[in-house]
This record gives sequence, C-alpha cells and structure tokens, in this order.
Amino acid sequence: QVGHSKARCLCLNGLVNHVKPLHIEKLEVYTSSHSCRNMEIIVTLKNGEGKKCLNPEAPFAKKTIEKIMKTRR
Amino acid sequence: QVGHSKARCLCLNGLVNHVKPLHIEKLEVYTSSHSCRNMEIIVTLKNGEGKKCLNPEAPFAKKTIEKIMKTRR
Repeated sequence: QVGHSKARCLCLNGLVNHVKPLHIEKLEVYTSSHSCRNMEIIVTLKNGEGKKCLNPEAPFAKKTIEKIMKTRR
Repeated sequence: QVGHSKARCLCLNGLVNHVKPLHIEKLEVYTSSHSCRNMEIIVTLKNGEGKKCLNPEAPFAKKTIEKIMKTRR
C-alpha cells in the first residue's frame, strides 16, 4: 500500500482507518509539502508484515498515535 | 543527533524538548523493540536542516504531534 519512485505522494493505493497500536513498529508522519499536498501517515508493522497508509482523517489515527505515546515500554 | 549503523538505539547524542511544528517535514516514531527499549521520536526538519531526536517524555512531544495532526494543509 505504500508507493515508491516517481509518485509524488506515497499513499496511492488506499488508506486504512485502523491498525492495532501494539502491531506498530514504526510510524511516519509526512507533513504537507510541495511534492504531496496531503499529510501522509505510514505505519510499519512488526514481524515484517509490511506497511500501511493510515487515513489522517480517521479519528482512529489520532488515537493510535496517542496510544503509542502512552505505551512507552 | 541521529545515530546510524551498529547502534541499537537511534538517538545517541541527546534529545531536544522542542521543535517548531511548522519546521517539521517528517516525524518518525519508533516503538520500543528488542533492539532499543526506548521509544524514539525522530524529526526531520524542512529545508535540509537535518534530524533531531525529540524527547518522548517531554510534554511538548505530544503537543507537537497533535499540532501536526491538526495543521493538515
């Protein structure tokens, strides 16, 4: 679900609204820029389960980030 | 301020407590893992100004993330 190479935006093939916070290894937030006007949130899953684009409009996105911030260890 | 290669944790040389949200191009949150027990937050600044490790314990870190989530365009 994460695009590469020439694409300006990274999230080209659909967004998910939900990812289990405990499954998240890494979360990347790309702010709006000249190359892509949308904010993009890319989540890398644990155990090599790949990447997902998280819908920044979904209320879940904020909650996920808050949860990650809390479960520090 | 961001370590590479053999280092297990990425943030080796000190953390900052504050970064201007508008200066942030990309924000990466690495959750706690076997290779690094701490949560790490790495901020890439606009205009090639490099990367900073943001202190996850700082109340500012959460606020920054919230602000980024709001200023979507």
